[in-house]
Amino acid sequence: MVIQETIEVITSGRETINLTQQVQQIVANSDVQIGTCNVFVAHTSASLILCENADPDVRYDLETFMTDLVRDGDPKFRHHDEGPDDMSAHIRTVLTNPDVTMPVTQGRCALGIWQGLYLWEHRTHRQHRKIIVTVSGDK
Amino acid sequence: MVIQETIEVITSGRETINLTQQVQQIVANSDVQIGTCNVFVAHTSASLILCENADPDVRYDLETFMTDLVRDGDPKFRHHDEGPDDMSAHIRTVLTNPDVTMPVTQGRCALGIWQGLYLWEHRTHRQHRKIIVTVSGDK
Amino acid sequence: MVIQETIEVITSGRETINLTQQVQQIVANSDVQIGTCNVFVAHTSASLILCENADPDVRYDLETFMTDLVRDGDPKFRHHDEGPDDMSAHIRTVLTNPDVTMPVTQGRCALGIWQGLYLWEHRTHRQHRKIIVTVSGDK
Repeated sequence: MVIQETIEVITSGRETINLTQQVQQIVANSDVQIGTCNVFVAHTSASLILCENADPDVRYDLETFMTDLVRDGDPKFRHHDEGPDDMSAHIRTVLTNPDVTMPVTQGRCALGIWQGLYLWEHRTHRQHRKIIVTVSGDK
Repeated sequence: MVIQETIEVITSGRETINLTQQVQQIVANSDVQIGTCNVFVAHTSASLILCENADPDVRYDLETFMTDLVRDGDPKFRHHDEGPDDMSAHIRTVLTNPDVTMPVTQGRCALGIWQGLYLWEHRTHRQHRKIIVTVSGDK
Repeated sequence: MVIQETIEVITSGRETINLTQQVQQIVANSDVQIGTCNVFVAHTSASLILCENADPDVRYDLETFMTDLVRDGDPKFRHHDEGPDDMSAHIRTVLTNPDVTMPVTQGRCALGIWQGLYLWEHRTHRQHRKIIVTVSGDK
């Protein structure tokens, strides 16, 4: 049994957006009791992370770390068609990944108590993002 | 056909633990001959890596690299509720990932000869970790 | 329904190789209309990335970034059995990952318009690489 749905998100610059509830709802509606849930961002400058979901400072610090690691507008970069956040957004996406696959147990993504699924927008301006959720398994 | 099992591990501080044999055993017991095996850590401060399995120095050097890249107790971090290894452990997890999906071929995870699956504990103290293994496919 | 095929690639040193068309062809031949496609590199010194597919400078800049982040022959490393690119190749693989799982929609990997799937060879010499593609889902 395979169920597939698309989530559309409008981001407002570099930020993290909690997708956990929307994805859990898709899994709940799918009737899959045991299996996997694949979440996939169809873009090269936004990614998915499973991150601590209680203290927003964790995501703030993640952003601080990544901003320092991958410099916007680094003069070493050749590619900057869409501005200083263009190439850095591609690198940030590669370092974190656009796909995640989670187990489904008793009709839910079996996330740990502190795990939240976040879309990480790496561009600094508003973007329209498409996320595909595929739930596979048995009733 | 979907089979799911949980592995529980007690870690003793920052270290890597070889899960390959336990996961291969779950696949062997599952009767799935062809498909995929998803392994998932239900935590935000431990992750999974596929790493060279012959020379322990590889994992030693990985730890050296990561220790330098993500500084414990970095004064830039706001989040340090559980000590200097708290925020760094979250970042290390995001950079490496809590999920991996491997092909199953002829009833085994089709790992390369040098590939081992390791849990990477990023906290410096003893932790109880839950890893969920989902084997999906055909007989 | 599960279909599995192996792609073999001869790399010629550190480079990225576009696998998108070969993987899309395997999905097209599989008769799976909806499901997932897992791609897996059975090695610890080459990885997979979903990357911008239009401007080759993006992959050039990625290489520049990674070369600076993970130093070949870093004197901190103990493991250098196969030369200065040995340990760095393992680290680069762990930071990027050997596995990716994409949704299959209407008989194709549902990649975004700018997403290409690339093998990233991290060794500086010619290598023989084996990539396993597993397509799972329904007709």
